[in-house]
Amino acid sequence: MESIYKLDGTFDKHVGEMKTPVPPAVIKRLPRYHRYLGELLREGRLRISSAELSKIMGVTASQIRQDLNCFGGFGQQGYGYNIKYLHGKISELLGVGEGYKAVIVGAGNLGRALAATRMFERRGVNRIAMFDVDEKIIGTKIYGLSVYSIDDMHDFCVRNKVDIAVLTVPKEAAYSVADTLIRAGVRGLWNFANTELKVSAPGVVVENIHLGDSLMTLCYELKSSSDEEDKK
Amino acid sequence: MESIYKLDGTFDKHVGEMKTPVPPAVIKRLPRYHRYLGELLREGRLRISSAELSKIMGVTASQIRQDLNCFGGFGQQGYGYNIKYLHGKISELLGVGEGYKAVIVGAGNLGRALAATRMFERRGVNRIAMFDVDEKIIGTKIYGLSVYSIDDMHDFCVRNKVDIAVLTVPKEAAYSVADTLIRAGVRGLWNFANTELKVSAPGVVVENIHLGDSLMTLCYELKSSSDEEDKK
Repeated sequence: MESIYKLDGTFDKHVGEMKTPVPPAVIKRLPRYHRYLGELLREGRLRISSAELSKIMGVTASQIRQDLNCFGGFGQQGYGYNIKYLHGKISELLGVGEGYKAVIVGAGNLGRALAATRMFERRGVNRIAMFDVDEKIIGTKIYGLSVYSIDDMHDFCVRNKVDIAVLTVPKEAAYSVADTLIRAGVRGLWNFANTELKVSAPGVVVENIHLGDSLMTLCYELKSSSDEEDKK
Repeated sequence: MESIYKLDGTFDKHVGEMKTPVPPAVIKRLPRYHRYLGELLREGRLRISSAELSKIMGVTASQIRQDLNCFGGFGQQGYGYNIKYLHGKISELLGVGEGYKAVIVGAGNLGRALAATRMFERRGVNRIAMFDVDEKIIGTKIYGLSVYSIDDMHDFCVRNKVDIAVLTVPKEAAYSVADTLIRAGVRGLWNFANTELKVSAPGVVVENIHLGDSLMTLCYELKSSSDEEDKK
């Protein structure tokens, strides 16, 4: 399959035409477009106008046109966007469906919750194992995923060419676990370990999840909103 | 306690001086400052320079000065920031320590994981109950939190003046659960239900968590990084 995504980070609108790089701010918004377009596809929809998409997503139609025009002129006036085409192009750009292999490290409540979701496979990521230190659960299966000893993690990851590791280990263990994974060739770390992992190994990418920051944003909005109400 | 946060959304640098509103982009970054400053406090540190904070947090010193100058001139040249003062001011602005009361709706794996963390109390939010539909766990305790029937949720929230509900229910149930909560006076919804809640009730704020979007960002970065490596 020929990718329209170029090695230099640019993106062909049409083969043979000029290349326009997709700005990082747009990249950040693409997962949300991907999610909404996926839902529309599952509902059997074929086309959607920027006006309708704007209404569903709660952003302005001009923002949508500006974001999606990076992908070329397939939002024709009066016809709307071809949902399947657009969803496919965004999938391709985001690396969805690359068939990445992932492991979950830590089989506590959060690890189990992540083992239970269908989020991974929906995005083309295949979970192949879990690792933990607890002898009681090593050798068992959690939602169909085999749990192995963390002592075997390095060799397993080398042998199976694991791409992504999901870290749900205690904060104190995060760096040593990350180190083992990186030495085993794992290049994507999705970190839930409640500490911000800073990794400088070349080619390794880290996505830190900080639920606490989101909770604080909620508290801030709640407080601002109460202040607004008090003024009335 | 007199708040330096004003009802009109502005923020006094010093009482009696001119008010400078904190820009929304800075607000978004404050939880991260709060987290780092909290860690420094726990380590017993008193002061920190913008240069050192810049190194720890991985952002430029000029960004830090620009962000924190909203809070007034307490980053004196050569002395650095007073960590406790700054942490306190950010807490106050974010609504941390307001003593909000929260409930967790849904006692599955994710609900349990959220019941297990110390994230809430650390940010001044008190969890007081969980709700579920499963007869087998209603009446039990999960990490010290009593689990009640979802049928009693409305009355419980009214009686206890619950501020925040954490939704870890299936996607299909999200809107009806949110509706019950809002009718019971709950004004903050922290939504993990894998669907974007859109609520138009006045004074109600929603923070949607989309882990799938974060996973896609990771896949995109992994793909870009592989492409970079291939070029070499």
